Amino acid sequence: MAVGSILLDFLVTKEWRRVRIVQKYGGTSVGSIERIEAVADRVAKTCSAGHQCVVVVSAMGHATDELVQLARGIDPVPEPREMDALLSTGEQVSAALLAMALHKRGWPGRSFTGWQAGIVTEQVHGSARIEDVKTEALRKSLDAGEIPVVTGFQGISGETVTTLGRGGSDTTAVAVAAALHADLCEIYTDVDGVYTTDPRVVANARKLEQISYDEMLEMANLGAQVLHPRAVENAKQFGVNLVVRSSFSNEEGTLVAESAGYEQHEVVTGIAFEREVARIAVLGIPRAQHGLATVFGYLAQRGVNVDVIVQSLVQAETVDVSFTVKEDDTQRTLRVLEELRGQLSYREIVAEQGLAKVSIVGAGMISNPGVAARMFSVLADGEISIKMVSTSEIKVSCIVESQELDRAVQQLHGAFLTENLGESFTQTTSSVAKHAY
Amino acid sequence: MAVGSILLDFLVTKEWRRVRIVQKYGGTSVGSIERIEAVADRVAKTCSAGHQCVVVVSAMGHATDELVQLARGIDPVPEPREMDALLSTGEQVSAALLAMALHKRGWPGRSFTGWQAGIVTEQVHGSARIEDVKTEALRKSLDAGEIPVVTGFQGISGETVTTLGRGGSDTTAVAVAAALHADLCEIYTDVDGVYTTDPRVVANARKLEQISYDEMLEMANLGAQVLHPRAVENAKQFGVNLVVRSSFSNEEGTLVAESAGYEQHEVVTGIAFEREVARIAVLGIPRAQHGLATVFGYLAQRGVNVDVIVQSLVQAETVDVSFTVKEDDTQRTLRVLEELRGQLSYREIVAEQGLAKVSIVGAGMISNPGVAARMFSVLADGEISIKMVSTSEIKVSCIVESQELDRAVQQLHGAFLTENLGESFTQTTSSVAKHAY
Repeated sequence: MAVGSILLDFLVTKEWRRVRIVQKYGGTSVGSIERIEAVADRVAKTCSAGHQCVVVVSAMGHATDELVQLARGIDPVPEPREMDALLSTGEQVSAALLAMALHKRGWPGRSFTGWQAGIVTEQVHGSARIEDVKTEALRKSLDAGEIPVVTGFQGISGETVTTLGRGGSDTTAVAVAAALHADLCEIYTDVDGVYTTDPRVVANARKLEQISYDEMLEMANLGAQVLHPRAVENAKQFGVNLVVRSSFSNEEGTLVAESAGYEQHEVVTGIAFEREVARIAVLGIPRAQHGLATVFGYLAQRGVNVDVIVQSLVQAETVDVSFTVKEDDTQRTLRVLEELRGQLSYREIVAEQGLAKVSIVGAGMISNPGVAARMFSVLADGEISIKMVSTSEIKVSCIVESQELDRAVQQLHGAFLTENLGESFTQTTSSVAKHAY
Repeated sequence: MAVGSILLDFLVTKEWRRVRIVQKYGGTSVGSIERIEAVADRVAKTCSAGHQCVVVVSAMGHATDELVQLARGIDPVPEPREMDALLSTGEQVSAALLAMALHKRGWPGRSFTGWQAGIVTEQVHGSARIEDVKTEALRKSLDAGEIPVVTGFQGISGETVTTLGRGGSDTTAVAVAAALHADLCEIYTDVDGVYTTDPRVVANARKLEQISYDEMLEMANLGAQVLHPRAVENAKQFGVNLVVRSSFSNEEGTLVAESAGYEQHEVVTGIAFEREVARIAVLGIPRAQHGLATVFGYLAQRGVNVDVIVQSLVQAETVDVSFTVKEDDTQRTLRVLEELRGQLSYREIVAEQGLAKVSIVGAGMISNPGVAARMFSVLADGEISIKMVSTSEIKVSCIVESQELDRAVQQLHGAFLTENLGESFTQTTSSVAKHAY
């Protein structure tokens, strides 16, 4: 039973004859004239089935990268307002081309830039948040029987064009779907859904039929790149039903939606992981100095992104703290900490590279306190040593040696996700992760 | 004495301390990152001199052609609204990049799309006419000490983006100059001014310091491509002082302005010409049939552009008419005339290819009735036979054999423009034409 179909069947059962669907197509999905033609065919097919469509598009393939390169040719740090004015043209091109392709098929496509579609953002350049979608123009277009084709990634603040940052087209699609009370928001990409883990690491990784917003968020933040985390957050907030699917096939995708009713099923939904992690330990910070606040406040101020934090030992007079950063950021982090010496009389810093993070994710963990213990036991059985541990309500992360990561993912997938393998719908909700990392 | 300087001196004499200048840069002038940097230098220099600048830009080099090609890949006849949405991105890119380059130099450049700049057009796609320039945003920007960088070639009608057609950036520049009451509108291109004729044909062709709007219009319509005729018409209507000059050098250009006071000078301003012309003669049209109206009405309806028309002989019962078309249009014209046979019982059609048109242009002709006769005599002396003649108040055109064209241009230039060669200002107003045909 197909996901999209399940939801559509559900909607049709409620006698919503015309379902309103927002379809978002990413850069590779509109990467060439041929791909745009294929997208037009898909949109036309959806409309032919009687549904109402709003399309949101990214820029073609590498168009945005090419524009960034042009700007860097002028100035390594281009003026932010003008950078947004420049970048916003990428989606305008793909939207106009798709609208043309729809016209050629006899469907009245109509392109909308961010300002034409009423996508109002805060006055920030490069990573603006959407504040409002003024839907008048889109509703008028839909009422006229047109197919609005909206540029993703961009909006307007006053009379100034803004952009939402990388991955912002997903956010546009969700915002438009929420504002138009769409029944479904389909995110078309180059993978055919969300997997229990990366199939390149675990051969029998399975595609999920459904995953909850929170699980998807943990997966997204842990390294999955199918959906922009902001889009998932917004979808959760406004209850937008998301489907992740491929524009290159007719495979059914993965539904991201509220998981109410599924808590009784599998505890672990998926295995996420991240390579190239470094651990930094700051040892012997005097307790009196509010060391943690000083260290992490200063790192944040200097733009260093810290992931897992563990205050590993508390001795009588001093505190030791460990945290992870991306391996690439190791030297920069050490320099920043060196600058801190004047304020903070720590004893020494120890850095360890060549690490990785593996996480089990699942909404069911909240009511299953033994899950973390089982994870540790599975890793111990595999003689994989755990360097650090971090937990949240729906995930447990372990820092391990990089060379042992794949084995860790395989053993955890085997223990949590493969043993009860079956065809029932309940089981297909029991895992999460992503195809292409 | 330099043209721009002459005008600036004139303006400064009137104690206009801050002169307001609109500078328009064409596609080759912003064709690469390096060229955009050079344009930024020039704009910064003008502003450093205390003048107020508004910049209008075309799309980079072949950007528009590449967008047209993308659209044609979708549909040979793309939907017009979407074509305009697509093409308008070309100028957005160059405007944003130029604004960035100004920022890098410490000047607050600010890009404006057609809608942001308040360029309101009629609701026509591909060749919209500007109806109004709502200058609020531009004035606010100027008042804030910014340098507005406006996208040429585009405007808005309602909430829909429109384009003005090829060469429309000149029209944008003139409209903005008129609306802002600019003192000067500089058109930067890849030639350094308007010449008495093509220097590739006549070695001692001279660059003009000044030419009147009407002369420029005759030159433009006769084949010169420096300035779009619509831009010249608008400049004339609103009294905008235009300067045509090169963005690749510091040469002074040619001032296009009202010529009041110069009528007493040279009669002929320049020699224009056009290659690849065909003559079509429709012979023996019965007088009772309103043949001329039928023939040219039908040709216009079928989109055939007719240039010179001569009703060469009127016999007792029938009319003969000759006209010229571009050589490429010969076969199409003959087919259209063939279709007319049912309505119009003409005797026969004669087509002659391998012809060319040479014209002398000059506002002084109005008061010098002997000029046409002198032209015929110069051509007769050179044994160049004249196939057709057409005259207006400020030009005389002759159709000649294509192989005799260069010689005709040289002899006419020698007779009308070279003999009184001197260095005085009065004489430099005595010729017109263009460098690159």
